[in-house]
Amino acid sequence: MPGADVTLIVGNKNYSPWSLRPWLLLREFGVAFEERRLPLDTEAFEEEIGTYSPSRRVPALRHGTLTVWDSLAICEYASETWLGGRGWPAAAGPRAVARSVVAEMHAGFEALRAACAMDLRRRAPLERIDEPVRRDLERVLAIWRDCRARFGADGPFLFGAFGIADAFYAPVATRIVSYELPREARDQKYIDAIYALPGMQEWCDAAALETEVLDDP
Amino acid sequence: MPGADVTLIVGNKNYSPWSLRPWLLLREFGVAFEERRLPLDTEAFEEEIGTYSPSRRVPALRHGTLTVWDSLAICEYASETWLGGRGWPAAAGPRAVARSVVAEMHAGFEALRAACAMDLRRRAPLERIDEPVRRDLERVLAIWRDCRARFGADGPFLFGAFGIADAFYAPVATRIVSYELPREARDQKYIDAIYALPGMQEWCDAAALETEVLDDP
Repeated sequence: MPGADVTLIVGNKNYSPWSLRPWLLLREFGVAFEERRLPLDTEAFEEEIGTYSPSRRVPALRHGTLTVWDSLAICEYASETWLGGRGWPAAAGPRAVARSVVAEMHAGFEALRAACAMDLRRRAPLERIDEPVRRDLERVLAIWRDCRARFGADGPFLFGAFGIADAFYAPVATRIVSYELPREARDQKYIDAIYALPGMQEWCDAAALETEVLDDP
Repeated sequence: MPGADVTLIVGNKNYSPWSLRPWLLLREFGVAFEERRLPLDTEAFEEEIGTYSPSRRVPALRHGTLTVWDSLAICEYASETWLGGRGWPAAAGPRAVARSVVAEMHAGFEALRAACAMDLRRRAPLERIDEPVRRDLERVLAIWRDCRARFGADGPFLFGAFGIADAFYAPVATRIVSYELPREARDQKYIDAIYALPGMQEWCDAAALETEVLDDP
């Protein structure tokens, strides 16, 4: 069982979307772990990150002598190692679609991410929604609607029960809230389900108490 | 068994690194599939891609009525469905590291990818290797050296036998060759192993016969 020999290295809770993903997965599935927070853009980060992560980025996971890095690889490892595969849908087809939407988020949505950096404490509309941002937002919402319609019968999440796909879309749900981006009631329902997760509340509470302020997170 | 009900939708072989990854994996493991080539930046692409891929990007995989998209999700699906998991190292630790380096490639190396777009037919030095490109290149080579030293005892590839990690680093191997980027003999040995794969030769031969020319691929 995990615990003292499992450490997750994360950035600021207010600002680090990549850190939120595996943290939320581990918390929601009750995997015990130590947390090491390295605030971004600090000397401490620059000094220590290399000892934890060969890519020099957060998040990273230490399990005994093993280092796993990148949010997706950590989620795959956690699902295999501690969740009995429950990070993904049980059936092959939905699992393939879940991995597809996760991969699309992992490498895409550059415009939305650049215009709306995660900033959990923010509540203010985006000044101008330009065309690439609008396209990204529409695609995110289309993914949510499609997954929930096809696979979400058994719960409020993308594939019914909470899993890796939701952990991956949780940061973008917060961006939609923080920047007050346009969405429909059905989209807000999914956002509400994300925010209602105990782990999400714990993360947001911690973000609210952080004192670092990044101008350009 | 796969075959007539499996279709892989790819872009131009000369220009589409994301397409190369799952194509090479399927070929090297002898998975039978139909290929549908949609040249990038054409009317045919714009007209047809939506019927194959909800993200409107290549690659996409059709298996019966199931659509899987994104190079990584397709490789995971192929490994589970047809390879008995052999796309990844068999042991949990090396498998986690393989997924880490694949995820790092999947979402990273923006500078190298922007400066050195895949162009298999090109053989000309990059005019100026700026600092972000140099850092990306050094990190790619560090990953190769580290994986091969730690896990590559049983073969010429990153984890010994050919797998998803190599399929993911094959495109960047071609960029290093095409743009004549600096590397050591040990790095060239890995590049040679990639180019010696029968599937890689078949892909490069097809790229050489393509007639489309993109100025800014």
